[in-house]
Amino acid sequence: MDHTKDNNELDIIIEGGMLLTMSDTMDVIDNPLIGIRDGKIAFITRGDIPETRSFSARKVLSAHGSLIMPGLINTHTHLPMVCFRGLADDLPLMDWLHNHIFPAESKFVTREMVYAGAMLAIAEMILSGTTTFCDAYYYESEVARAAFDSGMRAVVSQGFIDFPEPTAPEKIADIAERFISKWQLKSPLIIPALACHSPYTCSPETLTSVKDAARKADVLYSIHVSETKEEVAIIRERFGKTPVQHLKDIDILDDRTLAVHCIWPEDYEIEMLSTSNVKVSHNPESSMKLAAGCAPIPIFIEKGITVGLGTDGSASNNDLDMFREMGTAAKLHKAIQMDSTVMDAKTVLKMATINGAKALGLEDRIGSIEPGKSADLIIIDTKKPHLAPMHSYYSQLVYAASGADVKTSIIGGKIVMQDRKLPLVDLPSIMQEVKIIAKSIGSN
Amino acid sequence: MDHTKDNNELDIIIEGGMLLTMSDTMDVIDNPLIGIRDGKIAFITRGDIPETRSFSARKVLSAHGSLIMPGLINTHTHLPMVCFRGLADDLPLMDWLHNHIFPAESKFVTREMVYAGAMLAIAEMILSGTTTFCDAYYYESEVARAAFDSGMRAVVSQGFIDFPEPTAPEKIADIAERFISKWQLKSPLIIPALACHSPYTCSPETLTSVKDAARKADVLYSIHVSETKEEVAIIRERFGKTPVQHLKDIDILDDRTLAVHCIWPEDYEIEMLSTSNVKVSHNPESSMKLAAGCAPIPIFIEKGITVGLGTDGSASNNDLDMFREMGTAAKLHKAIQMDSTVMDAKTVLKMATINGAKALGLEDRIGSIEPGKSADLIIIDTKKPHLAPMHSYYSQLVYAASGADVKTSIIGGKIVMQDRKLPLVDLPSIMQEVKIIAKSIGSN
Repeated sequence: MDHTKDNNELDIIIEGGMLLTMSDTMDVIDNPLIGIRDGKIAFITRGDIPETRSFSARKVLSAHGSLIMPGLINTHTHLPMVCFRGLADDLPLMDWLHNHIFPAESKFVTREMVYAGAMLAIAEMILSGTTTFCDAYYYESEVARAAFDSGMRAVVSQGFIDFPEPTAPEKIADIAERFISKWQLKSPLIIPALACHSPYTCSPETLTSVKDAARKADVLYSIHVSETKEEVAIIRERFGKTPVQHLKDIDILDDRTLAVHCIWPEDYEIEMLSTSNVKVSHNPESSMKLAAGCAPIPIFIEKGITVGLGTDGSASNNDLDMFREMGTAAKLHKAIQMDSTVMDAKTVLKMATINGAKALGLEDRIGSIEPGKSADLIIIDTKKPHLAPMHSYYSQLVYAASGADVKTSIIGGKIVMQDRKLPLVDLPSIMQEVKIIAKSIGSN
Repeated sequence: MDHTKDNNELDIIIEGGMLLTMSDTMDVIDNPLIGIRDGKIAFITRGDIPETRSFSARKVLSAHGSLIMPGLINTHTHLPMVCFRGLADDLPLMDWLHNHIFPAESKFVTREMVYAGAMLAIAEMILSGTTTFCDAYYYESEVARAAFDSGMRAVVSQGFIDFPEPTAPEKIADIAERFISKWQLKSPLIIPALACHSPYTCSPETLTSVKDAARKADVLYSIHVSETKEEVAIIRERFGKTPVQHLKDIDILDDRTLAVHCIWPEDYEIEMLSTSNVKVSHNPESSMKLAAGCAPIPIFIEKGITVGLGTDGSASNNDLDMFREMGTAAKLHKAIQMDSTVMDAKTVLKMATINGAKALGLEDRIGSIEPGKSADLIIIDTKKPHLAPMHSYYSQLVYAASGADVKTSIIGGKIVMQDRKLPLVDLPSIMQEVKIIAKSIGSN
């Protein structure tokens, strides 16, 4: 690389600290100098090499005493559901969904609610180290708009569900095409996608029509699969087979399908996910809270399935903090499998970064800090009692750190948080707006 | 109450916000005025009653836009183990304990390490909302001294273990008496106690000698019990019975016994714990991480057993944040029992406050905010995205809040944290000291 050519051309230089690249070789670089230009990592070198001192940039960030790592990737969310956070907890899943969430959604979901809720959720995510999310909800264009306005990277999925009634196949194709063309060239940070709610709330016709549209546009297709025992029973009764088998038989499974949850697959279904190169989104806290069960993630990983981590919506979690989600993922499977060696810290950190990127098909641009990739990174303040001493970076990040330890966040080369402040989000207004929305929901 | 008499005599007034008292009737008081004098809650009234405006105090704290609640009670810790945090993770429990922790302890545990580690841990605990802990470790007087110096409330337990060799009964009595008399009148915040490591690392003679000393001095006696399947097998082989049965047969079980973990009790042992009025300390994250199992806490509660929450040492957690522990406790049992209605938010919050106080025998002075009780309370800043909207205080605290949301902390009427600053702890020095200690451990 010709370093001299970069002189005076950089947007940001980050100097000092400890860089966890999360590259294939898991390089860790002490006292790095990271050059960022045009939204990308221009170079990474060592700060103590004299020649590197000659760089100049419009902005220099010191990371001394800090960890630098890729921003976290939340592979499954329903952002506007923050408005329902804490509204109906500690209830059975079907009661929660059908008697509380679905009625509240049918009554209170408006474009304004979706935008305000998404903005609040984005603020929470940036403040806790997430730089990319994959979302599906009603009025998804409003989620996309919130991501665009806040500088967040987002996979926004136009969702389909046969409720209150199915959409006709030709209409599906039309809606999908309009949504994708509206967003695909708007910004490199906004990536349109499609989603079906689940095999039990979508007919085979809906499922395949949406998948056809996704294949045509080469976008991600995500779907909740095998989330509960009840779902498995419903699909068995309706189709005489299990959910993943059902999806395979109607040709939904391929490497651009993101299967969310996958808690109750049979062994032969795990093989199907693996051979079809389907990606999985693991949302442990939501599934714990809803008592849905625990996906056999260590087995998925053993079978070579790419697994990303997600929080799910905050009506069933109830936070969007990926650090807490990592801690839970690392510990839950140890408890379930009675094996303290499964889901070690490195595995979990990969799940929340590079493997999350792979799950969304974005590993060419995010998930690790390497020259040529987008500058999506976070700086973590380690000068805190709960992060001392520093015997292991990976352990500290997964088992002890929390979102509140993230000091600075950069997405696509733009600083979206510095010293815990959000320059692109008018937080007081958004919080006030959500408060008013919540009041109308709560008083219902 | 004669309010006029209090005029000009208060130490602290807290005004505004929302008070969760955690009293028997779970009173929630909007816009309270809390008077604190001589370390105690002098009165609680409503801030909008005109006559209450006449109070004056040396210090007035505004809690507008905040929640006020009792400080959290961590019923089981080994504070100095912070020095081993992240040193040996993702290993089998027995490998972790016998090949990493015990050897590190035998080599590196000194008075200096215990004091520095305890101070670091106390800083972490105060910063995350804990106001009382119950600890057992080597050189426990150094833990007591750290608590005393930092203004923390602590149950400090002189521990016994037959390793490297048993202590003679008369020596046990002597050590116990000296430890208790050294600390019992030193400060109302420091409460001496005794502990045995476990039924498998202490002979019946050690167990009963320590319990005799505890009964004589009327102090708490804590012990790890039924933590792993391996322990149950060892006790079965040695004594032909299960661990709780064993403890019952040698007369250890009574209302001043705190049984820690209790993961593998038989049904008849749960009955024994209940009829003996033994208290239980539940440490879900540590047991998950060590793959020790999950205690049947919802059944304990159903049987009327008092259960407090704890983090355990930070070599097996790896943080001391009781908010995260609450979130895990609430969700884990839902996942294990496949029932999303167990361990609701209120139950878990009680476990971390008033029931923790009961577990330690301190419910006369802490665990709830009521006139006459010690002023041990925390103020939580709710003006944060992840705590909005506020449909339910209890849900937000258990499922979404984290230790970093605690703004102010008061113990025994003294402000130990204000605006995230610790006036009584020299944090940079302690962190530097632990860094040096950790370097010698890590380079070993």
